[in-house]
Amino acid sequence: MSEGISLEELQLATRNHGLPLEALQWDVTPVGLHYLLTHYDIPAVDAGAWRLHVDGLVERTVALSLEEIRARPAVELAVTMECAGNGRAHVEPHVVSQPWLLEAVGTARWRGTPVGPLLEEAGLGEGASDVLFTGLDRGVEGGEEQDYARSLPLSELLEGDALLAYEINGVPLPPQHGFPLRLLVPGWYGMTSVKWLARITVLDGPFDGYQMRHSYRIRMDEDEEGEPLSRMQPRALMVPPGLPDFGTRARIVRAGPCEIRGRAWSGEAEIAGVEVSTDGGETWAHAELVDTSLGRWAWRSWRFQWDAQPGEHEVCCRASDAAGNVQPLAPPWNLGGYRNNAVQRVPVTVTA
Amino acid sequence: MSEGISLEELQLATRNHGLPLEALQWDVTPVGLHYLLTHYDIPAVDAGAWRLHVDGLVERTVALSLEEIRARPAVELAVTMECAGNGRAHVEPHVVSQPWLLEAVGTARWRGTPVGPLLEEAGLGEGASDVLFTGLDRGVEGGEEQDYARSLPLSELLEGDALLAYEINGVPLPPQHGFPLRLLVPGWYGMTSVKWLARITVLDGPFDGYQMRHSYRIRMDEDEEGEPLSRMQPRALMVPPGLPDFGTRARIVRAGPCEIRGRAWSGEAEIAGVEVSTDGGETWAHAELVDTSLGRWAWRSWRFQWDAQPGEHEVCCRASDAAGNVQPLAPPWNLGGYRNNAVQRVPVTVTA
Repeated sequence: MSEGISLEELQLATRNHGLPLEALQWDVTPVGLHYLLTHYDIPAVDAGAWRLHVDGLVERTVALSLEEIRARPAVELAVTMECAGNGRAHVEPHVVSQPWLLEAVGTARWRGTPVGPLLEEAGLGEGASDVLFTGLDRGVEGGEEQDYARSLPLSELLEGDALLAYEINGVPLPPQHGFPLRLLVPGWYGMTSVKWLARITVLDGPFDGYQMRHSYRIRMDEDEEGEPLSRMQPRALMVPPGLPDFGTRARIVRAGPCEIRGRAWSGEAEIAGVEVSTDGGETWAHAELVDTSLGRWAWRSWRFQWDAQPGEHEVCCRASDAAGNVQPLAPPWNLGGYRNNAVQRVPVTVTA
Repeated sequence: MSEGISLEELQLATRNHGLPLEALQWDVTPVGLHYLLTHYDIPAVDAGAWRLHVDGLVERTVALSLEEIRARPAVELAVTMECAGNGRAHVEPHVVSQPWLLEAVGTARWRGTPVGPLLEEAGLGEGASDVLFTGLDRGVEGGEEQDYARSLPLSELLEGDALLAYEINGVPLPPQHGFPLRLLVPGWYGMTSVKWLARITVLDGPFDGYQMRHSYRIRMDEDEEGEPLSRMQPRALMVPPGLPDFGTRARIVRAGPCEIRGRAWSGEAEIAGVEVSTDGGETWAHAELVDTSLGRWAWRSWRFQWDAQPGEHEVCCRASDAAGNVQPLAPPWNLGGYRNNAVQRVPVTVTA
């Protein structure tokens, strides 16, 4: 951040929406507060004319209407979704793209039909190994005009909980969340969950389009092939305590007992623990995990009782998961500024 | 923008939400795409325990439940609301606050009960001249801890169309729009429409709190009293044509007929006309105004047929209203970076 944010980055920051962190207080994020990252323009889709095409290495290509999809077996899942670029504005040296600080997250109840059975009904052809999802959003990125499109291993779709979702929090998807239908892959970073879904194509290998080959990979330089991003790394975030200052977002807390509350999630494994530090990460104490019964794919709640003493403090939180992943104290760097899950640090002034 | 945006401004930009400009295509902005500016934190309000208090220079103080307010005569109004700081990031020298470019606007159908009759039923006391609206959002601004609060002249409330609104687009207000009740003052900049309304207090003069005395005034230096902001100045915005580049938001249009569409509004008077320039403001032609039957307080639609020739263009639009107000070509400056309604300029590459 030492160089400041450019006009181009500001254009992205003012059109893409973050979760104001006090909205972590809701188990399920109200529609309109969930984070949104839109690569191109939000398309307006005529649901009556729209069809979902299933093609490629299948025995029967199909074109399904929204009514036909809604008539299929339905599942509702509470899912926490985070952008792979969350935390990007904190990495050094500076990486130019959507400049998220920490707010690219949200939890919603998504209703839809599982992807796996639909693929099996279409009949998987010989050599089928990957599945491409293509959206109706179109634009230019890296000099290439493209429909937004990404593929997933077939095994993830046959064994996992991926949905074709048409409702969020009990209402039809609003335009910005992918109306009329989107992919929803629990546990993975948000780029996987293709919005405004138009086509599902079964392939005999991974798709090598721009969003697979260039974006969403951990690379240290342009010549490196790199590792594709997939599951969300653990992260804990707190509701910033006390009152905010409008301009600086600095927090003012009255001395005395102060409950710090927050959420934690990981796409790799269950959350194992959350720790809180009130001295900038020098010392840590365990927070209490609270069950909110949202299921495996949504964030866990936690709380921590702090006896706030007058003075300046830096309150931090960090999560670990059952696979042994722990949030780092300092931001990791890579070319895309992805997967920065360094601990949140909230400066707090405690007044007597 | 020459200096870049600071971390503090980025914190505001990522938590406050702009309207992605392609969303101008919807007559009524879908919930979740309307702009949002939250001074402090979004409060979570228990609607059962909540009451609206009416006090001050009234014959009968009252405390109304949400059910009692919903039982009163109801009105639905389509209202375009814009932040007084819209356009701030374009002014020079740079003004530090929420760095809006052009996206701090939205149109919604608000349902609620008129304010005027409620005040008259409470019985206006002698000398009553202004009415203070106090929200449940609390924080620090300019070194002052405060509830967000602003007053309006009584005449504006008795004669105008101000509502106490409890629904947006047919659903209860979501938390971020002021649940359970907000003020809605058609034609005025958004700071007037106090969210999370807790108290209405009849006064014998204008309130002189921070949001009246310091913020939301046109001042050229700190010592000046300045002019309070009130009604929205005219502005036209277009749906950026063609396809976007993800990072730069530059637009790519195929040569040939291209319809430019947009919206225009003014809180001062009806929109009288919209003009479009495709050469950066050198020459202008009239756009066609289209009736969308949204009523006096919502934006007008317009369209313009452009025969796009290959090359680089700067497409601009500007509105004028029936009171003779016209958008300026260059951003006006003032201390708060308010009311910058300079024309929108969209660089477009037309490809053969």
